[in-house]
Amino acid sequence: MSKQELAVVGRSEAAGACCPGLLTAPLGEEQAEELAKVFKALGDPVRLRLLSMIASRAGGEVCVCDLTPAFDLSQPTISHHLKLLRQAGLIDCERRGTWVYYWLLPETTDRLAGVLTRPGGTATAGSPATGDAS
Amino acid sequence: MSKQELAVVGRSEAAGACCPGLLTAPLGEEQAEELAKVFKALGDPVRLRLLSMIASRAGGEVCVCDLTPAFDLSQPTISHHLKLLRQAGLIDCERRGTWVYYWLLPETTDRLAGVLTRPGGTATAGSPATGDAS
Repeated sequence: MSKQELAVVGRSEAAGACCPGLLTAPLGEEQAEELAKVFKALGDPVRLRLLSMIASRAGGEVCVCDLTPAFDLSQPTISHHLKLLRQAGLIDCERRGTWVYYWLLPETTDRLAGVLTRPGGTATAGSPATGDAS
Repeated sequence: MSKQELAVVGRSEAAGACCPGLLTAPLGEEQAEELAKVFKALGDPVRLRLLSMIASRAGGEVCVCDLTPAFDLSQPTISHHLKLLRQAGLIDCERRGTWVYYWLLPETTDRLAGVLTRPGGTATAGSPATGDAS
């Protein structure tokens, strides 16, 4: 299925580069819009659990038939959550016969980890400088 | 102001440890609820821009009076977004005289980066194993 959703995160970042981060400079409006879509997709516990089930599967992909029984939710509801994860570029899928199979797109989670990582692993901001309140 | 919001992310993770990640094992319901709250707070472009303005400020903190002019939004709207970031444990603040000053809580962004980071920096899931569709 379509990979165009990846553009949500990838458009304004060099491929593989780890990133004009969230913590190093003020985000532009366009980049903020793009990133917010992906974070919003993660802002739901069912979607987080689905993503973690897909990402941690040893074989690299999961049949939707193995996801649904873990939730007390209808198949259409699960499918809707999976669609939102897919539109955010976090997963992709393929239908084979009766079932749809899902897998992680690790480049998207890598980019999110990158924008949330402090440069050099040191603090960019810590406790307030109490003498600096002007 | 209160630091209890940090419990949103920190409760079920060892302090400083980098994390029973999202990508390594299926998330439990409770951990998914906790993480989803923080990702939801990041799922808005205004809040992402506010967070990046706060996080990237050299002095480590920002007066709300320096944040508001960057947006075509009312002061109460900006304050509401800042409150949501604070409730998610992403920032904290202190009132001094007329103004409120905000700073990043980097332990929260560190934890999010941790749960989104693949173990060992290698793929936990990649392209689907096409022979594995059973």
